[in-house]
Amino acid sequence: MPWWSAVEWVSADLGAETSSPAMLGADIIFHLASSTYPSTSNSDPVFDLQSNLVGTVRMLAKATDYGVRRVIFISSGGTVYGVPRVNPIPETHPTDPICSYGIQKLTIEKYLYLHHILNRLNSVVLRVSNIYGELQSLDRPLGAVSHFTQRAVHQEPIEIWGDGTIRRDYIHVDDVVDALMKSVSYTGNEHLFNIGSGLSISLNQLVDLIEERLQREVVVNYKPARSFDVPENVLDISRAERELGWKPGMSLEMGLDRMIRVASAQRLKI
Amino acid sequence: MPWWSAVEWVSADLGAETSSPAMLGADIIFHLASSTYPSTSNSDPVFDLQSNLVGTVRMLAKATDYGVRRVIFISSGGTVYGVPRVNPIPETHPTDPICSYGIQKLTIEKYLYLHHILNRLNSVVLRVSNIYGELQSLDRPLGAVSHFTQRAVHQEPIEIWGDGTIRRDYIHVDDVVDALMKSVSYTGNEHLFNIGSGLSISLNQLVDLIEERLQREVVVNYKPARSFDVPENVLDISRAERELGWKPGMSLEMGLDRMIRVASAQRLKI
Repeated sequence: MPWWSAVEWVSADLGAETSSPAMLGADIIFHLASSTYPSTSNSDPVFDLQSNLVGTVRMLAKATDYGVRRVIFISSGGTVYGVPRVNPIPETHPTDPICSYGIQKLTIEKYLYLHHILNRLNSVVLRVSNIYGELQSLDRPLGAVSHFTQRAVHQEPIEIWGDGTIRRDYIHVDDVVDALMKSVSYTGNEHLFNIGSGLSISLNQLVDLIEERLQREVVVNYKPARSFDVPENVLDISRAERELGWKPGMSLEMGLDRMIRVASAQRLKI
Repeated sequence: MPWWSAVEWVSADLGAETSSPAMLGADIIFHLASSTYPSTSNSDPVFDLQSNLVGTVRMLAKATDYGVRRVIFISSGGTVYGVPRVNPIPETHPTDPICSYGIQKLTIEKYLYLHHILNRLNSVVLRVSNIYGELQSLDRPLGAVSHFTQRAVHQEPIEIWGDGTIRRDYIHVDDVVDALMKSVSYTGNEHLFNIGSGLSISLNQLVDLIEERLQREVVVNYKPARSFDVPENVLDISRAERELGWKPGMSLEMGLDRMIRVASAQRLKI
């Protein structure tokens, strides 16, 4: 029997009445839900706000009523800071997002802080960099590591927006789960943590790493750059190391080996 | 004929279809509307978000379509900074509001910045301190200067939440209008300005100033302190002085003289 058969699943809109059974008797809420992506959020910011922000504010009111102890929220280390003035980016960096997705994540952070400070409901915010992992859905317009390995393994061309020099911070989902679990028992004075590898690599370097592993060249199609892609985004993770006793355990090289092994055992998905 | 008979008045919800006639052919939008107050916003944050934030985001999309050149927005110098770590507060101070009103004002600022930076619609944000003036509505739960002078003139007791030591920055509406007009033609690189007196006085000192002017004692009823009232909030206005060429022209003493003169000519309103 798989482990998840022991989990009680409730499907409901964030904050809707139908979400109540999931909160009954719960100590901790891991808020990982999002209805939009950085790349699409600017096209309909009202939907972005209604589904994510308003839904979360409703959910927080319910969570308070149900006596939930703590909410642990996945925010976006890649978008809340906007155009970085310094890399690696510390948590104290100004927050001026250049996409609606980043604004709604930031605003949810502010409501969590409001509840936290007024002693209504305790919370921890994790500003996570670019997550990847073997079970990542490929139906969504995000996840360079997953898309690239999947296509490279099946000898399909990779698409890159811009010239491939933009630099990002990639973190394996196992390390993010570790940070989530450490957030459950955290009792220090901080409220918000960057969670990433602390290292930046360019999209072209990512392709190089995949080529090394496959021991062959990969075809790349370069497309026009996008307005919301900043040149570099890498997170300063020293606060999480110091306060949560967390650090990333899986290098990108190790992670790519796992991604390639899984992709090789599957048919092409995209 | 009063000057306002030359103004075309359109009453409509923010961002609703019925607001379109007001935008047709307009160069500048002064966005001064708000459906909530700092003191009441925490009781229904969903209403706060729906009416102010979602309404504004809809309005910005319309304004872009109508070719509006600039939006000038009144934000809240008293709430966006949360508990000040330093006074006077510069614009670069962290923004962690402790009321929903401050969060929605801050989030509107972020959407204005998003439009500004993506070259969709230009904007200027004024983070204004506590505004007072002779025509301020007394039906609303804000405006210490207006409420205090009105009640003192008519020999009614003044109510103070807390012990009266909280310090605030008061600015006369004429000075705010001056800042709005200077924002119309501003062409520098800044986007956001504190607008206040730059001086802080306590509620008890405010009562003292009124007593001096009336040359008699005023009865004060002290009530329990409120969770969202920070001990001190005074704005650093050096950026507005330098960039907008603006500075406050009316001292609180002059302003109080005007408020008392007007209140004396009226019947008690509250």
